[in-house]
Amino acid sequence: MTSTELVPSKYQLASGLDLAFFPSKNIVKWLENFDEKFLQISYAARLNILSSIKSAGSGHIGTSFSSIETILVVRNLLLQWNQKEPNLETVFFSSKGHDAPAIYAAMHADGELKDEELFQLRRLGGLPGHPEIDTPGIPTNTGSLGMGISKAKGFIYSYRIEKKDSRVIVLLGDGELQEGQIWESMPGAARDNLNELTVIVDGNGIQSDTWISKTSPLGDLKSRVEGCGWIYLECNGHELKDLKSVVQRRQTKPTFIFAKTIKGAGINSMMAFRPEGKFYKFHSGSLDDANYQNSVEEILARMESVVPPFKRINSAPILNFEDDDKPKFRPKSLVTHWSTILHQAMTENQDIVLMDADLSYDTGTYLAREKYPLRYIQAGIAEQDMVSMAGTLALGGRIPIVHSFATFLSMRPTEQIFNNLTEKTRIIYCGFLAGIVPAAPGFSHQAVTDVGIFLSLPNVDVVEPSCAVELQKALNFSISSDRSTYIRINSIGNPEVCENKYFGPGNGTLRRDGEAVAVITSGTTLLSQTIEAAEMLVHEGLNLSVYSYPFLGSKPTEEFLASLAQYSHVVVLENHLPTIGNFHIFAQHLNSKNIFRLGLEILPKNGRNDEVLAFHNLDAHGIARFVKEVSS
Amino acid sequence: MTSTELVPSKYQLASGLDLAFFPSKNIVKWLENFDEKFLQISYAARLNILSSIKSAGSGHIGTSFSSIETILVVRNLLLQWNQKEPNLETVFFSSKGHDAPAIYAAMHADGELKDEELFQLRRLGGLPGHPEIDTPGIPTNTGSLGMGISKAKGFIYSYRIEKKDSRVIVLLGDGELQEGQIWESMPGAARDNLNELTVIVDGNGIQSDTWISKTSPLGDLKSRVEGCGWIYLECNGHELKDLKSVVQRRQTKPTFIFAKTIKGAGINSMMAFRPEGKFYKFHSGSLDDANYQNSVEEILARMESVVPPFKRINSAPILNFEDDDKPKFRPKSLVTHWSTILHQAMTENQDIVLMDADLSYDTGTYLAREKYPLRYIQAGIAEQDMVSMAGTLALGGRIPIVHSFATFLSMRPTEQIFNNLTEKTRIIYCGFLAGIVPAAPGFSHQAVTDVGIFLSLPNVDVVEPSCAVELQKALNFSISSDRSTYIRINSIGNPEVCENKYFGPGNGTLRRDGEAVAVITSGTTLLSQTIEAAEMLVHEGLNLSVYSYPFLGSKPTEEFLASLAQYSHVVVLENHLPTIGNFHIFAQHLNSKNIFRLGLEILPKNGRNDEVLAFHNLDAHGIARFVKEVSS
Repeated sequence: MTSTELVPSKYQLASGLDLAFFPSKNIVKWLENFDEKFLQISYAARLNILSSIKSAGSGHIGTSFSSIETILVVRNLLLQWNQKEPNLETVFFSSKGHDAPAIYAAMHADGELKDEELFQLRRLGGLPGHPEIDTPGIPTNTGSLGMGISKAKGFIYSYRIEKKDSRVIVLLGDGELQEGQIWESMPGAARDNLNELTVIVDGNGIQSDTWISKTSPLGDLKSRVEGCGWIYLECNGHELKDLKSVVQRRQTKPTFIFAKTIKGAGINSMMAFRPEGKFYKFHSGSLDDANYQNSVEEILARMESVVPPFKRINSAPILNFEDDDKPKFRPKSLVTHWSTILHQAMTENQDIVLMDADLSYDTGTYLAREKYPLRYIQAGIAEQDMVSMAGTLALGGRIPIVHSFATFLSMRPTEQIFNNLTEKTRIIYCGFLAGIVPAAPGFSHQAVTDVGIFLSLPNVDVVEPSCAVELQKALNFSISSDRSTYIRINSIGNPEVCENKYFGPGNGTLRRDGEAVAVITSGTTLLSQTIEAAEMLVHEGLNLSVYSYPFLGSKPTEEFLASLAQYSHVVVLENHLPTIGNFHIFAQHLNSKNIFRLGLEILPKNGRNDEVLAFHNLDAHGIARFVKEVSS
Repeated sequence: MTSTELVPSKYQLASGLDLAFFPSKNIVKWLENFDEKFLQISYAARLNILSSIKSAGSGHIGTSFSSIETILVVRNLLLQWNQKEPNLETVFFSSKGHDAPAIYAAMHADGELKDEELFQLRRLGGLPGHPEIDTPGIPTNTGSLGMGISKAKGFIYSYRIEKKDSRVIVLLGDGELQEGQIWESMPGAARDNLNELTVIVDGNGIQSDTWISKTSPLGDLKSRVEGCGWIYLECNGHELKDLKSVVQRRQTKPTFIFAKTIKGAGINSMMAFRPEGKFYKFHSGSLDDANYQNSVEEILARMESVVPPFKRINSAPILNFEDDDKPKFRPKSLVTHWSTILHQAMTENQDIVLMDADLSYDTGTYLAREKYPLRYIQAGIAEQDMVSMAGTLALGGRIPIVHSFATFLSMRPTEQIFNNLTEKTRIIYCGFLAGIVPAAPGFSHQAVTDVGIFLSLPNVDVVEPSCAVELQKALNFSISSDRSTYIRINSIGNPEVCENKYFGPGNGTLRRDGEAVAVITSGTTLLSQTIEAAEMLVHEGLNLSVYSYPFLGSKPTEEFLASLAQYSHVVVLENHLPTIGNFHIFAQHLNSKNIFRLGLEILPKNGRNDEVLAFHNLDAHGIARFVKEVSS
């Protein structure tokens, strides 16, 4: 290995920062001697992962680093099998999909992706935050946890029907094993003896917030897996030989390989999470410039001195991050407000119980969790379990507040929510990441069906607060309500707080006083874009009135309808698919032909928030354009 | 035991048939010597189960007979514990809830239910088909499978917060163990050492259609359960001493007891399902008069001669039922049509693959299953697994047709359906028991949110056929569509077939030609009631036009809107909750103030179909009344 071979190329970001990467053409050469150059290849891929995430500004770095060796080895084996047995069908995909940067880096190493595509990660028209079939070579859309084994089975059955032999390999996260679907999908594979199927678990021991053992331990996995009629194997997920030996041999039954890995493997500081650590810092998110440059240095040093990814190297610089018992700093948003509001509510009301599915940092429950451990129930990544527990906690007189991302909360435990609603109890469901932004993670994380689904259920109010005051009022309302509430929380946008005197179903609040045209909106994302649009339109002689209308789909009061009568045009903005919501209800009750909807019409795009809002005409410019057009 | 004690009382049905039952006051006396009179009590309860199901006309008899001993023993133990430890909180409920008749019989034996209440099973205002909290003594609403352990945990956490000790016992079905939620709920109980929790499985080995071992085997349950950190025990679920010994002792961990039982235990013919049998006949449904009377005789003979429920008695009459490799006779309905249509479609199109979740009889897949085993995938009671498999089958070029009850299909695998829809493939989802009838099983089985939920999802058409011709066209449409289709199939009502020339989104078909008032409906249930209503109204001088509009929520064509312009009034009928559907779409597009909705407004009632349709004003009388009122 010459050391000039190990000098990376550069890609300049708009900020002026140079990103280091190894071009595809270099790595492709190394692949010819895969076994010999394995460490070099894996570090080159690591560097490319690091830099593509840096260019994107977000991405799951910890799991990409823990799974990269597995991904490289599996793809290499598939290639070999295809050469040996041209009739064998092979499929490999990641169920968790959070490791997309590693998948892309491996595809790039093979020449399947171009150099410049690496730096289009999480950009509009670029590589999606979680894998999608629009990218050639990606077999299925993933990112919603737990579906992988079922999907692998579907591929195998399809080949069996075509009388084709296949090998289907699916990569799971270890935290993902908390999802019930994993365990409901296993027995059928044993029944039909699907020995085409190999599952590999990226066993890094850490889930979104912290250690699995501190969240919801997996128990005796070997017993659980063998009890389902599968073969259970273990290996070191960073060691070429070990990985190869367990994956290569076709077993007589479906096979479950637990690959022991280290989250963030290859960077000392990312591997240094203490056993008592509370917040692992490298699950997702990009590094700042200094940490990025230090990490590049460490990867290159390891590459040069051929140190395997699980070994410390003493010369490596220490990354500069908060202590692992404190959460990462978060810019002010409804989530930061929520953590304070929630903590205070729990202090005041001893009946409140928090329910969390491994998202205490992203849903702001961590403050209250610390203070009231007895009233904090960690379900792990097991949303159905969480929601059904909430049901009986409510029957027992508690006030459960259930947390997850809006898309998971509205679609994974839908029947469990319905069952609770038939009991007419008071449960507060809080869905985060609601709406089309953040758009970088893609479909699986963008909640755009949640409003329609919750409005299709009985005995529940749907509230989307547009500022911290409305958020506080939403919580107060839901606590004093005699039924359940779904609070739809945008994690993006943080408009100034408002004086909301008329908070309740059917009421809108004036957030900007104008003339002629009224815009009705909800949530922080669209309210902040609308206010910006209104300022733009002033220069064009159009003075918008802007209302927030947080109780989505609620019948407007006569007073509010009367106040809308003064406007020549009404525009309703919706941060979700068009089925049902505020537009329908105003179109039905407002006696006007001049009512228009601007909202999401199709599945939302992946990309940077500004790009995606613009694409769907839901940024300030798009809103201004639309309002001008319909009102002129 | 004197033999006069063993002469049952009589309750006369409207049909004139006498039902035999043991009054509560008799059994309460026997309960004083619970252990000694155990067989007698259990047979008295069996007789009461048999007769209450006979009076209802439906109910799950097989599991009620297999679980009655367990239920009696647990309730008796709870009573003892409560006497010994007044501060101990105790909860017992059935997760599957299908055994409601056995639960009620045990409550009646204790005097918690009155004699006459037994005969109000599945009647409006009577005892719900699956347990509901409106019945005093029922802790939580159940009947949707898989939620039991989570619910039990919620009760325990609630007591722990109150610093109260508890024992919570939950009864599961063995088929129910196929649901993923069971397995996602277990590890958390071990983590928090919930030794308050005991699970008892009614291990009768048979699920809805046939043996579990032939559907989706459970594997090595002991390993699976112990692997989750629980204690695993087994016992004979019909033996007093055995049951008592395993349930009584509080373990140091959450405990999982597999009680081996016999489905239909206590009646020879119900126990005689052959190992190669395909259709177990006594999962649900009532007996005809002759079989009922023979069963009464057998129970009384066993009671008198003290033969335990798992032993054959030679003197017992043989029930007269179809052979166990044939399905039960089913009166003509869309389901019978579907089995023929489906079988033919599979013959013609080799790409079609059937997916079933243990409902091959109720969804009509059994014919095709027999003929095309390679293209029939049995998921067991694992809807999420089924739907994700369908996703990759579709990516592989197959045309998966996914079957379940509409309520389970729309709410259990919602996120999996959404994930498939993001791949823009063609999958056909078929939901049965759609709408408010059959109303006897209650909330858990009445699909009234499915339309709103599917319409909230992207890339899918929602079609509700109102006759066999529309059903056939719905299948043809969905096979040739470039996206997914949800076919909403009413299992009740079988209107005459129609000539539907204009089948497709936006089109309505004239089903009855009249004047002045048009009724727009969909599905067999409401179409048949509407036709009947129209005949009634003729005598009152009102001549209705009736249209079926099967593509729910689709934008009406200009032609159809024009044809509606001739009517002074338009009434839209909806067999689901009001959120979204045909009414909204016509209200939006029809330029008329005289458009009215008649549909379900609140959660549907339990009861006999005619009672419940009448309650919600959706029977012929209700429809006639409504149309008259709004059009006069």
